[in-house]
Amino acid sequence: MIEPIRIVGVGRVGSAIAARLQERGVALRDEGAELVLLCVPDGAIAGVARALEPGPWVAHVSGATPLSALDPHSRRFSVHPLQTFTRARGAEQLDGAYAAVTAESEDARAVAVELAETLGLRPFELADEERVLYHAGAAIASNYLVTLRRVAGRLVEDAGAPPEALDPLMRRTIENGFELTGPIARGDWETVEAHVRAIRARRPEYEGLYHALAEATS
Amino acid sequence: MIEPIRIVGVGRVGSAIAARLQERGVALRDEGAELVLLCVPDGAIAGVARALEPGPWVAHVSGATPLSALDPHSRRFSVHPLQTFTRARGAEQLDGAYAAVTAESEDARAVAVELAETLGLRPFELADEERVLYHAGAAIASNYLVTLRRVAGRLVEDAGAPPEALDPLMRRTIENGFELTGPIARGDWETVEAHVRAIRARRPEYEGLYHALAEATS
Repeated sequence: MIEPIRIVGVGRVGSAIAARLQERGVALRDEGAELVLLCVPDGAIAGVARALEPGPWVAHVSGATPLSALDPHSRRFSVHPLQTFTRARGAEQLDGAYAAVTAESEDARAVAVELAETLGLRPFELADEERVLYHAGAAIASNYLVTLRRVAGRLVEDAGAPPEALDPLMRRTIENGFELTGPIARGDWETVEAHVRAIRARRPEYEGLYHALAEATS
Repeated sequence: MIEPIRIVGVGRVGSAIAARLQERGVALRDEGAELVLLCVPDGAIAGVARALEPGPWVAHVSGATPLSALDPHSRRFSVHPLQTFTRARGAEQLDGAYAAVTAESEDARAVAVELAETLGLRPFELADEERVLYHAGAAIASNYLVTLRRVAGRLVEDAGAPPEALDPLMRRTIENGFELTGPIARGDWETVEAHVRAIRARRPEYEGLYHALAEATS
């Protein structure tokens, strides 16, 4: 691995990456770094990159940001860990997650893949112009899974049941490879219509969402 | 446990329940049953119940169906395992799942809770008139989680990335207690707007869903 590495940004992702590189014995140092890894908010990447002396590799770990945000540096790439991070955990959060690698040359790709693998990630290549679409998918999968739990939890709670009862169900839905069961899978439209009537009566703000989800299911 | 039990229906749920009761040494028999457990499709419950000789306890395992579907029987209840079942697995699918218990008397509630616990389920009480709202929540949590994965998977695949890369992300989102991260959590509306533009350009059929989910997130 190219080293020393300078990590800029100590948020959720930067902290986990720093901890993992230390575990792996990679030298982290601000002076004389061969690779500067920007783990700052998306909106700050371009400004931080412009302020860096040209020379070392410069990379970011953002999902949606294009490589041009790293201008004027040309030895550059991106490694985006496709994972959600919490401050309550450490380097092990990287284990088994995939990582989107975007690079403009064979050299850059080799450095990016080596970094991803050193971090414990499973790299795949992603074209620079596809980053936003990719990141929209990632946000739907993770952020809107949170939304789904909140919406379902409110309905279950309104019915007088414990919302945490949904958690084993949701975990198993993933474990079972996202196999569709329930009324839509059975073609039981009477139950689907009953759901809509119940939501309209008690949580009308979710009726549009229910319909949009039902439509995307078939 | 009241026995012998007669189980009607050998679908996903009926098979898992029968396997678990056998494991627990509960007598399963069609003749002289003290409890008839209907594990048939929702639409078939009322017809099967009407055809049964009155006498034993009669119960169903449906989520949205009211107890009146068990007419004319008055010794009746419902135990709905809040779980998704696959034919590829057995009795262990019941372990740790919650179960909605609906009953109209103390006697019925006691039998229902004992059945749920014998099955390895964690029972909670659910009012009969709240079953549909409860079940709408359950369907959103499980069935629309499948939808979310399909939608996100298509976007990621359109971007040239492997859709299975989303699975560690979705599992961790649940493990982390549904903590919201990503652009909405950061108030990064520029990225959210970029998502919308990318979806509009490539998968316009999902734009309405994206908006409905974004709205329900805040």
